[in-house]
Amino acid sequence: MTKITKLLVANRGEIALRVLRSAREMGLQTVAIYSEADRNALHVRYADEAVCVGPPASKDSYLRGDKIIEVCKQLGVDAIHPGYGFLSENAEFARMVKAAGITFVGPSPEAMNIMGDKLSAKQAVKAYNIPLVPGLDEAINDVQEAKRVAEQVGFPVLIKASAGGGGKGMRLVHAAAEFEEQMQLAVNEATSAFGDGSVFIEKFVTGPRHIEIQVLGDEHGNIVHLFERECSIQRRHQKVIEEAPSAVLTPELRAEMGRCAVDVARACNYTGAGTVEFLLDDQRNFYFLEMNTRLQVEHPVTEMITGLDLVKEQIKVAQGEPLSFRQEDLSITGHALELRVYAEDPQNNFLPDIGRLQTYVRPQGPGVRVDDGFEQGMDIPIYYDPMIAKLVTYGANREEAIARMLRAIEEYQITGIETTLGFGRYVLRHPAFTSGDFDTNFVRDHFQPSVLQQQPSPELAQLAAVLAAKLLTEQKGAGAATAPNGAVAAGPASNWKKNRLAGR
Amino acid sequence: MTKITKLLVANRGEIALRVLRSAREMGLQTVAIYSEADRNALHVRYADEAVCVGPPASKDSYLRGDKIIEVCKQLGVDAIHPGYGFLSENAEFARMVKAAGITFVGPSPEAMNIMGDKLSAKQAVKAYNIPLVPGLDEAINDVQEAKRVAEQVGFPVLIKASAGGGGKGMRLVHAAAEFEEQMQLAVNEATSAFGDGSVFIEKFVTGPRHIEIQVLGDEHGNIVHLFERECSIQRRHQKVIEEAPSAVLTPELRAEMGRCAVDVARACNYTGAGTVEFLLDDQRNFYFLEMNTRLQVEHPVTEMITGLDLVKEQIKVAQGEPLSFRQEDLSITGHALELRVYAEDPQNNFLPDIGRLQTYVRPQGPGVRVDDGFEQGMDIPIYYDPMIAKLVTYGANREEAIARMLRAIEEYQITGIETTLGFGRYVLRHPAFTSGDFDTNFVRDHFQPSVLQQQPSPELAQLAAVLAAKLLTEQKGAGAATAPNGAVAAGPASNWKKNRLAGR
Repeated sequence: MTKITKLLVANRGEIALRVLRSAREMGLQTVAIYSEADRNALHVRYADEAVCVGPPASKDSYLRGDKIIEVCKQLGVDAIHPGYGFLSENAEFARMVKAAGITFVGPSPEAMNIMGDKLSAKQAVKAYNIPLVPGLDEAINDVQEAKRVAEQVGFPVLIKASAGGGGKGMRLVHAAAEFEEQMQLAVNEATSAFGDGSVFIEKFVTGPRHIEIQVLGDEHGNIVHLFERECSIQRRHQKVIEEAPSAVLTPELRAEMGRCAVDVARACNYTGAGTVEFLLDDQRNFYFLEMNTRLQVEHPVTEMITGLDLVKEQIKVAQGEPLSFRQEDLSITGHALELRVYAEDPQNNFLPDIGRLQTYVRPQGPGVRVDDGFEQGMDIPIYYDPMIAKLVTYGANREEAIARMLRAIEEYQITGIETTLGFGRYVLRHPAFTSGDFDTNFVRDHFQPSVLQQQPSPELAQLAAVLAAKLLTEQKGAGAATAPNGAVAAGPASNWKKNRLAGR
Repeated sequence: MTKITKLLVANRGEIALRVLRSAREMGLQTVAIYSEADRNALHVRYADEAVCVGPPASKDSYLRGDKIIEVCKQLGVDAIHPGYGFLSENAEFARMVKAAGITFVGPSPEAMNIMGDKLSAKQAVKAYNIPLVPGLDEAINDVQEAKRVAEQVGFPVLIKASAGGGGKGMRLVHAAAEFEEQMQLAVNEATSAFGDGSVFIEKFVTGPRHIEIQVLGDEHGNIVHLFERECSIQRRHQKVIEEAPSAVLTPELRAEMGRCAVDVARACNYTGAGTVEFLLDDQRNFYFLEMNTRLQVEHPVTEMITGLDLVKEQIKVAQGEPLSFRQEDLSITGHALELRVYAEDPQNNFLPDIGRLQTYVRPQGPGVRVDDGFEQGMDIPIYYDPMIAKLVTYGANREEAIARMLRAIEEYQITGIETTLGFGRYVLRHPAFTSGDFDTNFVRDHFQPSVLQQQPSPELAQLAAVLAAKLLTEQKGAGAATAPNGAVAAGPASNWKKNRLAGR
């Protein structure tokens, strides 16, 4: 047991703030780091101490592991929480942290190494009979050899970068004729993005759903799973809406996938919070994809349905504590959804729309949680991921969680930049989503930018209401807003005002 | 089954907004009412339609049942939710609503009548063997007769107004010698406050804890309880911190009190959400106090531990739907706390401190819910209850809920008026509270205004930090805020900034 007393969060934005909150609840002293672009960020203000680690570019600040360890030494920090992204899956950094006598809140460097590479991950889990997508076990860069493999597993096939993630270096090939060109493109992209051009070839799964299992292990050999998250609603191969539980998992399938996920974690002696990603095909077969050796962006939905605080669990494990529950103690209560609110324009291929949050008012009330790192008047920096917030709703069941999310989207006031809020509203109202009958192709199959144009903007709706009120006032010859009985409320200057006209 | 399509909320402030949110999630059209003092209130902006019903004074606006029913007729409203306070426990209003063909979201006028009077309530529950505080069954105003009763049950005794509530017309008498004077004072106070001078006499319970049970009944004879809320932390006989579950109830006692509460509800054929209040003495005996025939202020803590939305349950019952769960389907998950954030000065006997919310920033993050009706720049009106917000936290257990509440109190930024936030912090850190060993006398026994003065204000703390930073900068001869490595973050102009100085 190594009691942590002072924690540095090696991250920024909502996840830095979120980790700091749990650390404070545990009574830890807290240290934030920041780049010159984040001088006024909320996580900087929230921490007990905050240190600038360099210029805006990540490589000069949030990725400077050496500087971060130096800060720890100067300030007497005894543990680092890496958040997600940046250094969170960098085994070399984890090793440096350990060597400096500091606790890394995450798995061992060895586990990160095994799972950080898709091929070594697949080899590690082989002994556990984990189902894998049919394809080649080894990385390959010979085009002709790759083509033979593709023909063997049968088209369509997927070409995936060995070191990849987030859709980079990924190519779907429908027929042998186009294989060579696509393979070359994938290799080039992988080389430029990851410095490693090796790829592997696998069968393309039809009607695929992205289902991942949250796992949690301690240093005493205990590993449990915290059920699944469904993350099939993606744009540009990246998640945008997640939920727990999945609308399609039976208790039996959940238990089976959970057991597999625990085995994957066991295969690398995993400690802390991790996520085992699976593809589920349209016949309800599941295939292991990869393991993410860190906290996921979408971890809040798991927190909502289990009542656990995953960051606190991470910190407790890092202190050497055994898990305080067994698998049979855990159960799902209710349903949770997360919408990632990005500074992106869904009408323009989800391209980032960076700028100032001229209005920024969060939704409130029962079953609504907002994890963010901004406040009104702040700029979304161009240097980092353009996520503004994670809007999370909880309900007694899926229907209520959806209704809450729609209500919360209506309440959210953001002006100055385009966001994915309207896109979220569209998805949550779509029959394919509400029925649960969707897969990772939802955006391709069901979304065109024009569908959002059919919804009048709140500004326009308000303008129309004001105009109508004026007309009514003129007709009545009376000040509608001040008459004490049966009168119309004048619309204050806020997007929130959606009042239609009272009276006739 | 009478499907509600358009709901008017006959209330203001946080509860109006909270009811509107659930109504919107259910797809109902919504109507707000407001007084001239609430023209810019959030509930007015939130509803689909909003109607001014009169001048600021409650008796001219929120208590004008006739006007409110008139609004319903004009706008085609088919149901009224009364919230709490105002007309919510007015049986005559409920009767008028019903007569106008409108659904009243609440119990029958008959049930309200029975439970609205403490004596008729006690008579109604007699057949069910509900334990009552020893004392006289009937209202009394003869001083000598009352004194004889008091001597019979034994001092100390409590004199309570028959029509009372909130501590008005209540007197504690320790010895026979002071009885006559105190009785006269109680009668006078009750006459002036309620127009009814009759009182009753009962044994004063020692070490009393206020434990109430949430019940829910439908029109088909089903009644369940949703466990307890502990509301013992009170100031001026009014609740300020509530929690669920109670720290002292065993599962057996909980089940027993739950059964009693269901019986009380059955005694008046109760429908909808109601609350049965009990006193628990220091020997763990419980006594029925009264039933509140409406939604309670503190209902969110029950929502947090059950996952139910009580407003939606009320509306479903009012539509004639049967409850969708039985007693055995219900269980407690986790622990919840509520702190009522009042515009009051705890250092000045909790007197209202009305004014403008110059700064108003809500806490966020996991397990935090804020129910309020204000935003930055708004005034707290002098005409109504000075509650600003209900700060609710949820945790896997009591310890975590307390830690979250303390964290949330630190995050809450309110300037311009005094609030009960600092008082809440004091209580939540007090050994009597954290150990669970407290009763309704907590404030009398453990709180003096001076204890709050020992905590430096955030402003003062920030000033000290800025001064220290300046000194440090001068000593170092360097701009501390801009050095890229190991440097100090300059404190932005925000109360949130609590950073101590980094580096030496």
